[in-house]
Amino acid sequence: MDHGKNKEAASVLLIACSETDSNIYYASGFLAPDPYVYLSANGQSYLLMSDLEVDRARAQSKVNHVLSYSEYEERARKKGTASPGLAEVVHTLMQELDVKEWTVPADFPLEYGDAFRALGCRLAIKKAPFFEARAVKTPEEISAIQETQAAVEAALDGVIALLRRAEIKAGFIYAEGVQLTSEAVRQQLHLSLMGRGCIGQHTIVSCGIDGCDPHNEGAGPLRANESIIMDIFPRSVGSRYFADMTRTVVKGRPSDDLKKMYDTVLEGQLLGIERVKDGASGREIHEKITDLFEKKGYHTGKVDGRMQGFFHGTGHGLGLDIHEPPRISRSEWVLKEGEVVTVEPGLYFPEIGAVRIEDMVLVQKEGCRNLTTYPKFLEIK
Amino acid sequence: MDHGKNKEAASVLLIACSETDSNIYYASGFLAPDPYVYLSANGQSYLLMSDLEVDRARAQSKVNHVLSYSEYEERARKKGTASPGLAEVVHTLMQELDVKEWTVPADFPLEYGDAFRALGCRLAIKKAPFFEARAVKTPEEISAIQETQAAVEAALDGVIALLRRAEIKAGFIYAEGVQLTSEAVRQQLHLSLMGRGCIGQHTIVSCGIDGCDPHNEGAGPLRANESIIMDIFPRSVGSRYFADMTRTVVKGRPSDDLKKMYDTVLEGQLLGIERVKDGASGREIHEKITDLFEKKGYHTGKVDGRMQGFFHGTGHGLGLDIHEPPRISRSEWVLKEGEVVTVEPGLYFPEIGAVRIEDMVLVQKEGCRNLTTYPKFLEIK
Repeated sequence: MDHGKNKEAASVLLIACSETDSNIYYASGFLAPDPYVYLSANGQSYLLMSDLEVDRARAQSKVNHVLSYSEYEERARKKGTASPGLAEVVHTLMQELDVKEWTVPADFPLEYGDAFRALGCRLAIKKAPFFEARAVKTPEEISAIQETQAAVEAALDGVIALLRRAEIKAGFIYAEGVQLTSEAVRQQLHLSLMGRGCIGQHTIVSCGIDGCDPHNEGAGPLRANESIIMDIFPRSVGSRYFADMTRTVVKGRPSDDLKKMYDTVLEGQLLGIERVKDGASGREIHEKITDLFEKKGYHTGKVDGRMQGFFHGTGHGLGLDIHEPPRISRSEWVLKEGEVVTVEPGLYFPEIGAVRIEDMVLVQKEGCRNLTTYPKFLEIK
Repeated sequence: MDHGKNKEAASVLLIACSETDSNIYYASGFLAPDPYVYLSANGQSYLLMSDLEVDRARAQSKVNHVLSYSEYEERARKKGTASPGLAEVVHTLMQELDVKEWTVPADFPLEYGDAFRALGCRLAIKKAPFFEARAVKTPEEISAIQETQAAVEAALDGVIALLRRAEIKAGFIYAEGVQLTSEAVRQQLHLSLMGRGCIGQHTIVSCGIDGCDPHNEGAGPLRANESIIMDIFPRSVGSRYFADMTRTVVKGRPSDDLKKMYDTVLEGQLLGIERVKDGASGREIHEKITDLFEKKGYHTGKVDGRMQGFFHGTGHGLGLDIHEPPRISRSEWVLKEGEVVTVEPGLYFPEIGAVRIEDMVLVQKEGCRNLTTYPKFLEIK
């Protein structure tokens, strides 16, 4: 995917593994299992690749020049370094490019930072977001996110259908005679996602009190008449773009308290979505929701050493990473047209249950477009 | 999994995301989607966790103390820093621990490296392997690797059965009337792996000339009578340990040249496995194999600007990472009892095809134990 906007004026130096570092993948478009070197200077971009990867990088990357690491190793040797390390080899190329200062990300490896400075290079650390352009999505990126989202909705739909068919016996849930567990439902979601080329990891299927810890993945039998949070956020293997959606359901009959809490979270979520638009303050949106929850009597704070109420952010950007700028939270952040953010308030009270509802929306000039089409309902009879 | 050997004398400071950084996961046993802080000093280990994660970290991590980030933020404020950043907050804890020098990994974030140094901390960068203990596997780790390997072998077995049932028409391969492609076979492998709780990514199913680029994942219809390399290296979701195996097969009739090349690679691989033992030199093993290939007439080098022959390492350690120390390659590395390494020579000649055969072995006092049980054969009639 060519972003056509990745023009950073600064000269950039990245050394990272594109499998785990989205900045170098975004800049180079090249996926490899081991760290490699990316540079951009004077409007041109470069990769220094090992012999093993150089042909593939030439075919698959989107940089202007794929250079051979061993060739630059040889040049460094000729300049007098007997056994040049990576820093010396890269430095040979840096000198050829004749750049005064290199911009590196905050998580640039300290070892190489020290080495380049010792070689006389000036490094300017740029905090996240390293590539501002990553937050604002192109039409291709939005399509990629929507494609992943389609897999999310299909996977959830399979589970909802399963829960509809399921029976309740002695407070537990059975489908085709088998007791449903968090693990089994998660596995069904993961197989469905994989069937559509997406990898789900840490998918949350948490029942009742388990859900009150928002990052608890859930384990054991699912119980009827209790909240079941399903938070699904896979990555597409092909595009590498994530999607993210949460629904909370009850198989059977929710308590009145749980119903009221669900309605409150939904009201807060819709209020949040309504306020997302170009120029809106993430902090203000978050505060509107926390105010609503307080007003409705859901107080956030520690009880018996454990947080309850609404104690996470309202939303986060996503794309090549599952969590990336911007944020809708206590921190100040002004939303911009083209950003894709989640809106996912939740309420967590061990005595009632846990509710979180999450959609993914595209920030627009006036308002936003909801990229999530899955319906919202609490009860499954 | 408690390693029971993770006693590093130095005081360690790690700031990383355990989802992508195996050192912090190894040290803490705690998986979280965002970066967090790990310290060890005076035989005690610490996590500084956000309110959102602190309860889960207390339940799931294996450190001695899970501390609240916001509490240390408050302490930093009391000491006079108006809005303390992460470095100031961590520094408050560092001062309490009264340590002269902190050991950090080579890929420690430069931004924090600069910040801690500015606060007067001495940082000692330790090159990989950061935790030597990670290379030498405990019995639990070996079991975890074997469990992942069982999923690999089951997945491959499904594909081999499919290829046996398949028919050849006009040079292509059809199973149940459908033309087999790299993509379809990869998808079958991934679904089978997922069925056993493992995530396969970048699994290679590459036919003929595609296989001559060892990292080419393969695409398009599989052809009869040509080499098909299948390199399968998933991670277990539960244990997070990888396994790695490669087999090369031909559906139909391989050429005599391809058969000879297969036999040569197998001879080299067996010769390599035979030499793996505690104290053996990885470089010498690699050289034995390269010598054999040269002697048999398979010369390694560039032809028409493209590498052919045997131009990658013979093997690599694996565990929580797919590539970790030790190496069996041109670099010097002495193998140690308890390490798990691959032995995976290959030969790549565009005019003949590509062959790689890979097993995973456990280094022992005398020799090694092969953790791979899948048979080796070239032809599938």
